[in-house]
Amino acid sequence: MPLFNTLPAPLLLALAPLLLTAAMPSTAADTDALRSAVQSHISEHGGEILGDFRELLSMPNVSTVTEDMQKNAQWISQYIGERGFTSKIVSAGGAPYILAERKTPNAKKTVLIYAHYDGQPVEPANWDTPPFEPTLKNAAETLDWDEARKQAIDPEWRVYARSAGDDKAPVIALMHAIDAMDSAGLNASVNVKLILDGEEEFGSPTVEDILKEHADYLSADVLLFCDGPMHQSGLRQLVFGVRGDMGVNLTMYGPSRPLHSGHYGNWAPHPTDALMRLLATMKDMDGNIQVAGYLDEVTPISEAEQVAIAAIPSVDAQLQDELSLGRVEGGGKRIELTIMQPAINIVGFQAGGVDDQARNIIMSKARASLDLRLVPVQTIEHVRKTLEDHFTNQGFYVTHDEPTAEVLRAHPGVIKVDWTSGYPAYRSSLDGEAAQRLTRILTDYDGTAPLLTPTLGGSLPVHLFDQELDMPIVLLPIANHDNNQHGRNENMRLGNLLSAIGVYAAVLQNFGLD
Amino acid sequence: MPLFNTLPAPLLLALAPLLLTAAMPSTAADTDALRSAVQSHISEHGGEILGDFRELLSMPNVSTVTEDMQKNAQWISQYIGERGFTSKIVSAGGAPYILAERKTPNAKKTVLIYAHYDGQPVEPANWDTPPFEPTLKNAAETLDWDEARKQAIDPEWRVYARSAGDDKAPVIALMHAIDAMDSAGLNASVNVKLILDGEEEFGSPTVEDILKEHADYLSADVLLFCDGPMHQSGLRQLVFGVRGDMGVNLTMYGPSRPLHSGHYGNWAPHPTDALMRLLATMKDMDGNIQVAGYLDEVTPISEAEQVAIAAIPSVDAQLQDELSLGRVEGGGKRIELTIMQPAINIVGFQAGGVDDQARNIIMSKARASLDLRLVPVQTIEHVRKTLEDHFTNQGFYVTHDEPTAEVLRAHPGVIKVDWTSGYPAYRSSLDGEAAQRLTRILTDYDGTAPLLTPTLGGSLPVHLFDQELDMPIVLLPIANHDNNQHGRNENMRLGNLLSAIGVYAAVLQNFGLD
Repeated sequence: MPLFNTLPAPLLLALAPLLLTAAMPSTAADTDALRSAVQSHISEHGGEILGDFRELLSMPNVSTVTEDMQKNAQWISQYIGERGFTSKIVSAGGAPYILAERKTPNAKKTVLIYAHYDGQPVEPANWDTPPFEPTLKNAAETLDWDEARKQAIDPEWRVYARSAGDDKAPVIALMHAIDAMDSAGLNASVNVKLILDGEEEFGSPTVEDILKEHADYLSADVLLFCDGPMHQSGLRQLVFGVRGDMGVNLTMYGPSRPLHSGHYGNWAPHPTDALMRLLATMKDMDGNIQVAGYLDEVTPISEAEQVAIAAIPSVDAQLQDELSLGRVEGGGKRIELTIMQPAINIVGFQAGGVDDQARNIIMSKARASLDLRLVPVQTIEHVRKTLEDHFTNQGFYVTHDEPTAEVLRAHPGVIKVDWTSGYPAYRSSLDGEAAQRLTRILTDYDGTAPLLTPTLGGSLPVHLFDQELDMPIVLLPIANHDNNQHGRNENMRLGNLLSAIGVYAAVLQNFGLD
Repeated sequence: MPLFNTLPAPLLLALAPLLLTAAMPSTAADTDALRSAVQSHISEHGGEILGDFRELLSMPNVSTVTEDMQKNAQWISQYIGERGFTSKIVSAGGAPYILAERKTPNAKKTVLIYAHYDGQPVEPANWDTPPFEPTLKNAAETLDWDEARKQAIDPEWRVYARSAGDDKAPVIALMHAIDAMDSAGLNASVNVKLILDGEEEFGSPTVEDILKEHADYLSADVLLFCDGPMHQSGLRQLVFGVRGDMGVNLTMYGPSRPLHSGHYGNWAPHPTDALMRLLATMKDMDGNIQVAGYLDEVTPISEAEQVAIAAIPSVDAQLQDELSLGRVEGGGKRIELTIMQPAINIVGFQAGGVDDQARNIIMSKARASLDLRLVPVQTIEHVRKTLEDHFTNQGFYVTHDEPTAEVLRAHPGVIKVDWTSGYPAYRSSLDGEAAQRLTRILTDYDGTAPLLTPTLGGSLPVHLFDQELDMPIVLLPIANHDNNQHGRNENMRLGNLLSAIGVYAAVLQNFGLD
């Protein structure tokens, strides 16, 4: 198979130094056998794959609802137990984590796989179909699950449900990868360990304690983070970093009771006006952060990272068209470069009702929630300080407590700042031994090299795994880029789910080979 | 009774030219008899007053819920029918209006009274007690209705319910004024007509048709608008104008589907950012409107109006303290002057969730609702045009329809502008004959002159009554200024309700006297 001839020149160039030192591959015959085993399994057990995915997605999984999370954890333990995993459900005071292990006789290496089974909160009213009643659709219509299970799965079908794309699919794909190999009598070359996070969407507040307590149990040769979307080009990517993430809730104060906007409008200030004006000072129209000192800790993009990004096909024009965007931020920089900078996202602004819910009042409070994306080596402390200093410099009194009437009277503007949990970014170099090994395996299996992406724009608490576990970390996303992660109508393209079965199988088959 | 000696000098000065030409008053004996009749009625029937008010307030009255409005209208027709009013419930395609009449033998004059029985929409979650389960409280605690009905009403008690202050109280107070006079054998000097509006909080969209069709039925010598709050000083006021009111809903567009704020944050623009920035350009921090041409049609404040305002006790400092406001808009002008200017109120801003409902996404839309308060002689058309031109001048494409993907791709910013119903302001001179007659009656009954206020900050469709009915129009508010009108925990201070009984009785007794 003339593999490398199918790659465009820039990619070949980028890969060249890596391939020179890569681990020995499995034979072409082994790869063919694996592909064939996976294809057979999908053909024969497509209905089962659909059914398993549907069942897992039908369980609500907002991290703070303990009973729901326990139900999910029990289901997953049972499900992986049927494939020979021993597991334990552990907690460090937060939502449960599932730790699991499946030993392979004589394996010399161990792969630890991370995924999370909790999902973002939902606003069901915004969804076309209920977020916890998984719905199967083709481009045109909703499909009947029972009918669909009798047919071959069309890769363009999608399943709509919370966590379909983020991040319940890896469990299903990995177990079917194992089933496919077992059925065909193909051996894994590695022990497999799992850490399945039940609180990722809330910032994994207790993961550090979990890792400290179970570090021995989790020891491995590589940590594969199975989360996030594939590149917008549809190409598979290995990813070497994530942005950090912090949250902050802001409350701006107006009159101590709601006032009639006719009787008091242009005498009593609206808290909405003040909050809008303040938030607008944080960035310019191009998204450039204007907060003094905020960028002091930002690490410049390395030359190797620039080269890797240059080798990635540009998707900006395609994305802008797909998303109906008349403009983008970043001053002409491609998306892979803009996400290597910090982002200040105003993800929520709530003050009074709109449309039919509008009431003619001057409110007592206006509220906003910010999502702050960090890059190396920004620290939580510096971000907090520079942002609060910015509010102060704009003339507002910053408090962390509900202000008293005396405080409100004494200052022309008062803002309450409530920081939620957060963590810094993580970025590693592109040419470690495990990275090269994975690059080789994916190139061999896919027939084309994966993209090497310095960072995801999204966040995972990777830095804690780096801090607590002694192993290289690489991200291997499987979801379609347009999975509506975190929003309404989240979905998984089934072609991505099926493709992941093969990729996981390739890793299991080959990562432990010398 | 040395009435005028109790008035401060500036008020006396302001009143002097009016009193010279005022109608002949009733005798001091008549006034004493009326006061006594009202006091007796309140003492003997306080429980009934409470019970009637509670029953009316327990009926939900959001104008768009037809069934609820019919229930309110039927109740009111029955209630006023028991006091000799004939009535009809009429509609011009909107919510029902109640038109009613009570003839007085030999009366030479007729007083038409306007009130409305619909209320603003509610967000029950924000209320301390359910908005349609009226709750009786003293300063410290909730009172048991049945126990309270056995006691004398404390004027500082308050009833909490939607429409307690705005605007169901006039019906109750007026009927008990009639009961008090009837019990004491005191005669009215006027025929009384009523127009009770069921859609005021939605801008009374069909009132023009109602007035046109029923102009003869509604003919009278004066139209008393019984709505709005008393002056913040607690003094009674006659009011000679209202601001106009327009509503507009704005939608700013972002990506065509919600995006993960990590993967796309500082590449895909947030519609929230654009909407905030645009709205912030409409006013400066002091509330001064910055929209080009917007103020072209504003009538300057007349010298007579300035004199009248100067005679009103200043409440700015008291209000600022009461409302815990660290600053106010208007550049140092007193509130009575600032409300003679137009106001742009951003009454609603909704984009994503906050606090526990925050999701880390870049939304497809951000929405805001504006409440625009107009002054003479601003026109709907000019306000619309100048505001839309402002949006255009700020670089946004203005549309009135849901934009297509092509439109979104073609413009760096797209805003949808949905105008809701609106109407202009109304302001009349302070020295008409009916105004002088009312001033005399209130001065006589209260023992102190009412304030003469050029305009309320709030709005009523008074201009249409002026246009369709041939009679002078004066506003006579009865609600406490801190009634939380339009907001959560709306309330009526019972002292205000009881005081209104006497005032209405005084008008009925005296307005028709030569």
